[in-house]
Amino acid sequence: MSLKLSGKAAQIYDGIRGAPIVSPHGHCDPAWFAIDAPFSDPAELLVIPDHYVFRMLYSQGVPLDQLGVGVAPEDRDPRAIFRLFAAHWHLFLGTPSQFWIEHELRETLGCDTALGPDTADAIYDHIAIWLTDTDNLPRALFDRMGIEVLATTDAALDPLTHHQAIRDSGWTGTVIPTFRPDALLNPRAPGWVKEVAALGAMTGHDTTGYDGFLAALRKRRNAFKAMGATATDHAIEQPQTVWLDRPADTFATLLSGSIADADAFHGHMLIEMAQMSLDDGLVMQLHAGSRRNTNHTLFDRFGANKGADIPVAVDWVRGLEPLLNRVGNDPRLTLILFTLDETTYARELAPMAGHWPCLRIGPPWWFHDSAAGIARYLDQVVETAGYHNLAGFNDDTRAFLSIPARHDLWRRAVAQHLAAQIDRGYFSAETAGQVAQLLATDLARKTYRLE
Amino acid sequence: MSLKLSGKAAQIYDGIRGAPIVSPHGHCDPAWFAIDAPFSDPAELLVIPDHYVFRMLYSQGVPLDQLGVGVAPEDRDPRAIFRLFAAHWHLFLGTPSQFWIEHELRETLGCDTALGPDTADAIYDHIAIWLTDTDNLPRALFDRMGIEVLATTDAALDPLTHHQAIRDSGWTGTVIPTFRPDALLNPRAPGWVKEVAALGAMTGHDTTGYDGFLAALRKRRNAFKAMGATATDHAIEQPQTVWLDRPADTFATLLSGSIADADAFHGHMLIEMAQMSLDDGLVMQLHAGSRRNTNHTLFDRFGANKGADIPVAVDWVRGLEPLLNRVGNDPRLTLILFTLDETTYARELAPMAGHWPCLRIGPPWWFHDSAAGIARYLDQVVETAGYHNLAGFNDDTRAFLSIPARHDLWRRAVAQHLAAQIDRGYFSAETAGQVAQLLATDLARKTYRLE
Amino acid sequence: MSLKLSGKAAQIYDGIRGAPIVSPHGHCDPAWFAIDAPFSDPAELLVIPDHYVFRMLYSQGVPLDQLGVGVAPEDRDPRAIFRLFAAHWHLFLGTPSQFWIEHELRETLGCDTALGPDTADAIYDHIAIWLTDTDNLPRALFDRMGIEVLATTDAALDPLTHHQAIRDSGWTGTVIPTFRPDALLNPRAPGWVKEVAALGAMTGHDTTGYDGFLAALRKRRNAFKAMGATATDHAIEQPQTVWLDRPADTFATLLSGSIADADAFHGHMLIEMAQMSLDDGLVMQLHAGSRRNTNHTLFDRFGANKGADIPVAVDWVRGLEPLLNRVGNDPRLTLILFTLDETTYARELAPMAGHWPCLRIGPPWWFHDSAAGIARYLDQVVETAGYHNLAGFNDDTRAFLSIPARHDLWRRAVAQHLAAQIDRGYFSAETAGQVAQLLATDLARKTYRLE
Repeated sequence: MSLKLSGKAAQIYDGIRGAPIVSPHGHCDPAWFAIDAPFSDPAELLVIPDHYVFRMLYSQGVPLDQLGVGVAPEDRDPRAIFRLFAAHWHLFLGTPSQFWIEHELRETLGCDTALGPDTADAIYDHIAIWLTDTDNLPRALFDRMGIEVLATTDAALDPLTHHQAIRDSGWTGTVIPTFRPDALLNPRAPGWVKEVAALGAMTGHDTTGYDGFLAALRKRRNAFKAMGATATDHAIEQPQTVWLDRPADTFATLLSGSIADADAFHGHMLIEMAQMSLDDGLVMQLHAGSRRNTNHTLFDRFGANKGADIPVAVDWVRGLEPLLNRVGNDPRLTLILFTLDETTYARELAPMAGHWPCLRIGPPWWFHDSAAGIARYLDQVVETAGYHNLAGFNDDTRAFLSIPARHDLWRRAVAQHLAAQIDRGYFSAETAGQVAQLLATDLARKTYRLE
Repeated sequence: MSLKLSGKAAQIYDGIRGAPIVSPHGHCDPAWFAIDAPFSDPAELLVIPDHYVFRMLYSQGVPLDQLGVGVAPEDRDPRAIFRLFAAHWHLFLGTPSQFWIEHELRETLGCDTALGPDTADAIYDHIAIWLTDTDNLPRALFDRMGIEVLATTDAALDPLTHHQAIRDSGWTGTVIPTFRPDALLNPRAPGWVKEVAALGAMTGHDTTGYDGFLAALRKRRNAFKAMGATATDHAIEQPQTVWLDRPADTFATLLSGSIADADAFHGHMLIEMAQMSLDDGLVMQLHAGSRRNTNHTLFDRFGANKGADIPVAVDWVRGLEPLLNRVGNDPRLTLILFTLDETTYARELAPMAGHWPCLRIGPPWWFHDSAAGIARYLDQVVETAGYHNLAGFNDDTRAFLSIPARHDLWRRAVAQHLAAQIDRGYFSAETAGQVAQLLATDLARKTYRLE
Repeated sequence: MSLKLSGKAAQIYDGIRGAPIVSPHGHCDPAWFAIDAPFSDPAELLVIPDHYVFRMLYSQGVPLDQLGVGVAPEDRDPRAIFRLFAAHWHLFLGTPSQFWIEHELRETLGCDTALGPDTADAIYDHIAIWLTDTDNLPRALFDRMGIEVLATTDAALDPLTHHQAIRDSGWTGTVIPTFRPDALLNPRAPGWVKEVAALGAMTGHDTTGYDGFLAALRKRRNAFKAMGATATDHAIEQPQTVWLDRPADTFATLLSGSIADADAFHGHMLIEMAQMSLDDGLVMQLHAGSRRNTNHTLFDRFGANKGADIPVAVDWVRGLEPLLNRVGNDPRLTLILFTLDETTYARELAPMAGHWPCLRIGPPWWFHDSAAGIARYLDQVVETAGYHNLAGFNDDTRAFLSIPARHDLWRRAVAQHLAAQIDRGYFSAETAGQVAQLLATDLARKTYRLE
């Protein structure tokens, strides 16, 4: 599987296929690059941490523990896991996982054998050997993949030790953190009161009061910035914002254990974050519309991110109105919106980004980071928002090896879109080539202030 | 009109065009096959019972009674009705009704004349003669159409007399019932209290109490199963489920005439149905999102199913959460979801079916059972759910003659989709041929436990 | 940019490209044709009044006053404005504004130079000279554009002086008003109480009572009709209708300053308007789903229509149920629905228009009046509503010069759609040509009773 291109699309793709990888948002573990140890085995590399993979097998009746999920590494049989995965490879026909994994096998792992039940062992052995090669350690891979910059996503209280270690190591790869304070901003998050106290302990501010809470958040933002961060990231089920009249009172009530105003406070804190961005220049990202952990049994047993996060309809217009009317006309703010509700592309996001100076539309996210998903996105946002109100591409992955595959799929889909635009007579091949560069790298660099 | 195919698509279609028809959900009348009497006239065959047809003429000002709707058979002039239909044939340009009816005329009725105002009489006469041929009686047609199995949809209190008669007849056609207990589960349904009493009378259980009500429902499910049923079917405007703490109390209150908790009870009963499915193995179908009888004048005069059932937006995620968290991880359950809100394909249904072991996505339903509707469906569900979480095809028709036409359109649209997948480089022609078989017959057999 | 066509699509387009322009809904200023004065300068012609243009520049940080918005004509530097616009021309790549403006430059303004920062002055000079030519006065342009009829949109209290002047002038162009009473029907509209009083003063009816209010509205409708109007137009954020038991009481309460029932009253008045349409035959238009003036800072400084009107999700089904159940089966009513929520095309509007005799679906509106928007529209409405339940095309523009460009884009997109229908085998080239005529002119004439 490759998203085959020909003619004009192939030409456009040739102009960007080798461009550096700008990865301004994702979930790689900075420890990989701090420690630079080999990945342990093929199952750990391709199956166990990939929720796209294990959710699909689970949907067809394969228990998660048979795939190593929730099983201690020493209790796993990685070869058996890999066989089980290969035996169900047909489930992925036509999915982006098929594209990504085939791309990884072919381009990164150097394996030309087609995956399937009969080839599970051969491919397992191939990868196992590959993993022992020091040329395939994380830093070497990072360099070989042509990654210009990789942003991780880190809890606000993360001491950024691994990031510091990377900086101290002398290695030239650029890995930067992203400030993700959900656990502090959302009073419904488990252990919120303790998190707030820990924030106080970490920063030396008195977080039992609202002013100290804000000051402590500012301090952590600055610590992230000092480590190279250019952005913050925020997740919320509904993109709800609100400006409270007396946030200090609400904060006190919440700390005392009454969570009636939790959602309003969360919405208020998003505005506070936007206001802090005016001062410190961190780009703000908002990922909305995922209802988390909808399978309670699985959550109780295996924890978060187990494939049961399901998108819901969202209302960006009313939800962001308070935030935008407070800071949306300020030229210092950049706010990138990510949606899982594709109906908002043309109805809400493109008109909003085509008006508010602060807004940029994030690329197709999660389930929609796919060939058809990208085609729908470009079809539905460009006519109203143009290209310059887009934020370029994010791979947003937890699977390091999938980074080149994901950027490659985006670049192919972009090339296909632009070739169609030429055919429609919208612009010349030369202009298409320039827009391709924008979409492949330049918009991401500019939007995330990575230039 | 034919949904023309060429090249790879034509080849894929050739591999499945003659496959048996598996029809696991629809609204044919079992009496047709029990009694095996000829259809009365061309208007009765093609116009009067087809709500796709008369709604369109009504939308352009043709009164329903002029089309024979709500008129006793003896008071109708079928030729005048057919002429009126033919005079408005241009209204159907570009609609699936055009495809279906042209297919029926050409392939089943053997009529090559193009329908239109000038040919109404000639075609009427052709069909009238055709109807007198004993080769065109329902059972003969059923056999000639290559129907492997046909499921009807039957009220829970239906005595299944016609189904019994079919079984007793010695005819080899497989016609099975489907358990549809809406009138018993939804306290807002007209005459609910009487229905509950009738259930008691029919089963010998005391349905004045909740335990007896459940026992009686179980008994009816078993009676359906004994007659070959493999599935239940449930319709609801909003896919709302809830697990009541004290359902017996709610049931008593409802029976006493207070319907305040009717919706919650309906939602609770869907979970009870799912729980019964764990035991008896009946596959559960849920058709949600149709707001019924929105034209009150027409409903009062002509009754239900008169073209005024209009889709509304639905929320599958929150609506099914109580049901799924109670039984959704149980490998014994199969629950097929049908939507009229296409925005839920990619946003909700594909992610849900790509996670929960019990869920399968039903094919495009009703207004969306069309060439473009099928294309949108496959474009939006496959990337996240794959092919194996789909339920294959349903014709879901009240119009017997349209069965081959509807399966043919699905097969053509599937072939077109798969040919495009080959062109995109997603899989080989050989694989495409295998997926075509899945979509044409195998997934329906498997999902509905008809193997 | 041209939406290039070839083969069958080009042939179909050739059959309709020169058809007269029927423009039954838009926002041109009747004063242009009453006074027939030249447009003042190129910035006034192409930039300052076009909210598609200035919103996009604003979204990329250009202050509105630098574009002449909110600046008195005598304080503007039109050449500086035009340069600023040209310097940002790349923002419009792939948008309908690009298509429209390039079409205007090439086809109407006779300018072959490609727009861009380097050509700003040359193009400015070209247009400035063009504006001095008496052949380019509004009436001459109207005639040269082949406009058969142009409807403006006028407040209910507009004295229609300009329309009268056009009629008195002896010029043969047909410019007609449209009755837009939002300011009288929506008690939340600024100055509603004064508007109601002014209605009384204008009509001589006592509008302090509900009966007088209705009588006065009827009188204004008749005045519009006498001036050639064939339609009314209504805007509402949510398409909510309601039939009040005691509207006179509600009216009195609202007049006294309590707006609690404002929305219900607005919804009630829409039904009153529909009922008046039964009597006077004015076609009713309903534009729903735009949340107006979401940027409060901009609204306070610059007023309405400054690019911050953003679409929201709507519920046509429940919202129109009261209206339709009161008057929807009456053959005298035509009600045209316009949506900014594309999800309602296939889910709500097509099924509703495919049932209710009064309903027609308006063309893609505002952000969706674009090549891809038109393609999505036809893809999603035709299969269920057919072609005859569509209302043809509206340009709905405030930019006079964009009228031919907008009709041309629609005709090209229609040709492309119909060519694809031929390729799919749905109908012949001859039929496609007939449907093209319908969509280009005939459906608009028929739906708006302009025949």
